[in-house]
Amino acid sequence: MNILINGSNEIEPKKKIDAKAASELRQDLVSGDWVVIATGRAKRPDEFGNFQRSHDDKGIATCLFEDPVASGQEPDVLIYERPNDDWSLRVFPNKYPAFSNGKSRNVGEGPYTAVTGHGFHEIVVTRDHFRHLAVMDIMEVAEVFDAYQERFLALMNKKDVNYIAIFHNHGKEVGASIPHPHSQIMAIPVVSPYVQLELDGASKFHKSNRHCVFCTMAEYESESEKRVVFENEEFIAYCPFASRAAFEVHVMPKKHSPYFERITDAQKIKLAEVFSKALGAIYKALNDPPYNFYIHSAPCDGKDYPHFHWHIEILPHTSTWAGFELDTGIEISTIQPEVAAEYLRKQF
Amino acid sequence: MNILINGSNEIEPKKKIDAKAASELRQDLVSGDWVVIATGRAKRPDEFGNFQRSHDDKGIATCLFEDPVASGQEPDVLIYERPNDDWSLRVFPNKYPAFSNGKSRNVGEGPYTAVTGHGFHEIVVTRDHFRHLAVMDIMEVAEVFDAYQERFLALMNKKDVNYIAIFHNHGKEVGASIPHPHSQIMAIPVVSPYVQLELDGASKFHKSNRHCVFCTMAEYESESEKRVVFENEEFIAYCPFASRAAFEVHVMPKKHSPYFERITDAQKIKLAEVFSKALGAIYKALNDPPYNFYIHSAPCDGKDYPHFHWHIEILPHTSTWAGFELDTGIEISTIQPEVAAEYLRKQF
Repeated sequence: MNILINGSNEIEPKKKIDAKAASELRQDLVSGDWVVIATGRAKRPDEFGNFQRSHDDKGIATCLFEDPVASGQEPDVLIYERPNDDWSLRVFPNKYPAFSNGKSRNVGEGPYTAVTGHGFHEIVVTRDHFRHLAVMDIMEVAEVFDAYQERFLALMNKKDVNYIAIFHNHGKEVGASIPHPHSQIMAIPVVSPYVQLELDGASKFHKSNRHCVFCTMAEYESESEKRVVFENEEFIAYCPFASRAAFEVHVMPKKHSPYFERITDAQKIKLAEVFSKALGAIYKALNDPPYNFYIHSAPCDGKDYPHFHWHIEILPHTSTWAGFELDTGIEISTIQPEVAAEYLRKQF
Repeated sequence: MNILINGSNEIEPKKKIDAKAASELRQDLVSGDWVVIATGRAKRPDEFGNFQRSHDDKGIATCLFEDPVASGQEPDVLIYERPNDDWSLRVFPNKYPAFSNGKSRNVGEGPYTAVTGHGFHEIVVTRDHFRHLAVMDIMEVAEVFDAYQERFLALMNKKDVNYIAIFHNHGKEVGASIPHPHSQIMAIPVVSPYVQLELDGASKFHKSNRHCVFCTMAEYESESEKRVVFENEEFIAYCPFASRAAFEVHVMPKKHSPYFERITDAQKIKLAEVFSKALGAIYKALNDPPYNFYIHSAPCDGKDYPHFHWHIEILPHTSTWAGFELDTGIEISTIQPEVAAEYLRKQF
């Protein structure tokens, strides 16, 4: 089995997928990790969408982000205003930060390594309590990406900031304790271990194939079409071959670029179009499920990462990762990504 | 920061932990992964235990595992009987397997690698619907480990089985869809990616230090005492320095051994004592929380893994891994493992 375990990075046609197979082990082309597509346990696509709208549980009257100043949040570091003098988006430091600005100190012990959690932890809030990203129009979504970029550029050169995580939780089941739409930005001293796996995989693939592994996937998916949710000239959204959860979608620039923060204004609108279509399809197909999405961009530690390729991963909360996933890191999903993508395309 | 990012495997005393620090980034000594101990968001130890007994939701009358034969489960592959003719434990194949016995076939596509999910997926059921592992006595727990070992030995030499995952889900929040106490065994063709990370980390550590990284931790923890929950001559249970969740506990043999399946009968009783004490303390301290536990043992792919060291990881479901964890793989925990261990010891 070793030939299969270690995989092959050669790009050559292999056998067609057999839809009747009881289950498949699929390998992530970048990280080398495995997932199981257990079609023997399959549900129909329309059986995944039985969610309660948990993000409406807490009312607007007691919302901490409806008027951040009045509710005692930290002072804004960025604010976008509308012509009518109301704000449309604001960014402020988290009142209960997982990382806060300070001196980075070694606090290891015995054989162990540890440092104080120096960094920055910010909240990106949009104006409307109920207008979450899946129902925003393209220009509203583009404005959110604008804010992500502006804060990325402001934080990336701060002392000891080597990685910037940008993510969004929707639904209390996936960590959104405050239902008002908001994203989080954490600027941290260590490189994300998951991005490190992708960096290693991308370097290895490039060494073997003289081509970017993410470009390879974007090109193959665009050509084969079956896992594509939506694409335009600049971006493609597709259900990954080795999806870790039912209806997972990745959004990727078609032109090679390691660095999210270098996106142009024109590209941001193209990104917003593809992202909105994909997230809107997930919203409709699964009846407003809880989801997380996050941006994977190259580290900002002063090194070059020419073989990385920034992208967004959208993970709807369609299953519980339990003993097997926690034990092994192999996720079990119960729908083929090809079937999920087809169902998402039907939502347009 | 690179000197900190890459860590140091030298064993030398470092500065004492500062309990007043807002948060700490701690590095896992084996995998190199990071966690955040965010004490600025800390709860008191007794604030973690507000769980509903969800595993009692479904009644015994409709339980599928109360009489597996009558409820149409697959035929037993192992049964332990009591002198009174009732059974005490049985093992049978999962009716809805994630992996099933068959021919391993390449089902890759384009640049991607995939194989059919050949393998074995079994259920280990103990007799009593309500008597779950945290409340069992030592000899009952030893019998469960006995069954794990017996099935491991039976499955490890099957064709194309290269890794055996043994895990247990308690509570529907962490994947136990059937509340009757049961464990699962999956014999699979690929090595667990998480164990592969541990194998790589253990090899690297051994190369630098000529000593097992797990032995290093067991020895250091036993000597420093502050994170120890319980220990006897053969095993130690402690809250890991880089705990990924509040009240995480690892159980490890003190004598170096890569292979769980080589445990002796005498050792099994010593293991059951330490495991029962640790799980019982979690049960009492957190008011019967949902939890997963699993065994990490060396792969059974015919190779030798002299630098691995088998162990059990118990993960109580004390937090939701949300955007940041899914994005980066860095878990945020809100209690220091030293404080968690002290609170667990108070339960005896």
